[in-house]
Amino acid sequence: MDKKAKVNASILIIGNEILSGRTRDTNTSTLAKWLNSIGVNVAEVRVIPDIEEKIIDTLNFLRSKYDYVFTTGGIGPTHDDITAQSVSKAFGIKYEAHKEAFKILEAYYEKGKFNDGRQKMAWMPENANLILNPTSGAPGFNVDNVFCLPGVPSILKSMLGGLTNSIVGGKPIKSLTISLRTVESEIANSLTKVQDDNQDVEIGSYPFFHAGKLGVSIVIRSEDQSKIDDCNSQILKFINEKNIEIVDR
Amino acid sequence: MDKKAKVNASILIIGNEILSGRTRDTNTSTLAKWLNSIGVNVAEVRVIPDIEEKIIDTLNFLRSKYDYVFTTGGIGPTHDDITAQSVSKAFGIKYEAHKEAFKILEAYYEKGKFNDGRQKMAWMPENANLILNPTSGAPGFNVDNVFCLPGVPSILKSMLGGLTNSIVGGKPIKSLTISLRTVESEIANSLTKVQDDNQDVEIGSYPFFHAGKLGVSIVIRSEDQSKIDDCNSQILKFINEKNIEIVDR
Repeated sequence: MDKKAKVNASILIIGNEILSGRTRDTNTSTLAKWLNSIGVNVAEVRVIPDIEEKIIDTLNFLRSKYDYVFTTGGIGPTHDDITAQSVSKAFGIKYEAHKEAFKILEAYYEKGKFNDGRQKMAWMPENANLILNPTSGAPGFNVDNVFCLPGVPSILKSMLGGLTNSIVGGKPIKSLTISLRTVESEIANSLTKVQDDNQDVEIGSYPFFHAGKLGVSIVIRSEDQSKIDDCNSQILKFINEKNIEIVDR
Repeated sequence: MDKKAKVNASILIIGNEILSGRTRDTNTSTLAKWLNSIGVNVAEVRVIPDIEEKIIDTLNFLRSKYDYVFTTGGIGPTHDDITAQSVSKAFGIKYEAHKEAFKILEAYYEKGKFNDGRQKMAWMPENANLILNPTSGAPGFNVDNVFCLPGVPSILKSMLGGLTNSIVGGKPIKSLTISLRTVESEIANSLTKVQDDNQDVEIGSYPFFHAGKLGVSIVIRSEDQSKIDDCNSQILKFINEKNIEIVDR
């Protein structure tokens, strides 16, 4: 893929445990921070259940719309792990035991312990590229612009380092946060003016409650540090005029 | 709306701060647990940026596909808060100052402090139903099957109690969790058999690392407690045969 000015991605979280509220998703934040650092902007996240048709339809939409798709979840050994077979169907590629993955898993487990469930983790789309797993053996996989990662946050995190060279990002997205002891409505007009004057910079405003006190964090995001610095000066100017305290957060 | 056997909902998280990884979404879990308790199943979650066209398109899709849509974020006073105007456009309803909301906000703020930014929070689709906010004054709103809530988790949480009567759910979804000192691949085959024998029950298997030890939580979900109990017995049977320890989690 040629280097583009803007590169985007979507994240597809596959798992009933997020939809039921039982588990809070933290993989989006992990993936988004890593992707930003290599110049990829996360444009959309979807969370869907472990239903084959839903996975196929959603994946086919996302992979045609965004430069990259990262899926999390559903690549383990149990009956509800159906990501690999669904991805195979989405691409119309044979679902089979991957020789290299099989060898990795066979070597990972003690002799006699490489049972059916564990062997299932070697099944994936034919000729998929493996994403190595330094934590627990079972690899993820990549087909075209789709990267399939596990749902367990610590394992997912451990696999990203090995992936960085597979992703061609744009310019890294930089950000600056200014946290203030104020409320949003005190700064809304002034901040709107800064945003209007700097339309190619993303300026967000986020209220927070911390240690019993109200505050607002302003986040400035751009690929261009000098544009961030410009906005920062303009914001500091009105903060100073309004006598608003800057705080750590 | 008539009482239906199965009622579903989608959640639409509107906010660049989730997509950038800066903030981890916790509202999905809060909403999903509350919705389950009143018999509504969350079928899909989407996270999208503060872009009007994207909000309109996504909302129009979700509100036609699911019984309910809950949006979070983008109803504050700053320039990046564009949910209310986007929802108005999605429905083709006039965006205007809501008389009742205006009165609530006027009464909430000290005299002379009800500035432009604060007045903006009274703007919403004409004749929207208000969702009262016991924490910080500014109400959310409801149009047809769409319910718009704020992004700040503690404020969102405080508004759900007042909403319960507006939602017509199906039978509450019950769940039972069995946590085991094992790994998924040891129980995969036995668990598949239980799932195959009980296809109308949702059985999930979730590995965890806790206090330095590996484990698996099996989650059984159904509207029918007797079906959960049946699956529980079948699972306890093979756990016992395999000599697997049950643990607290």
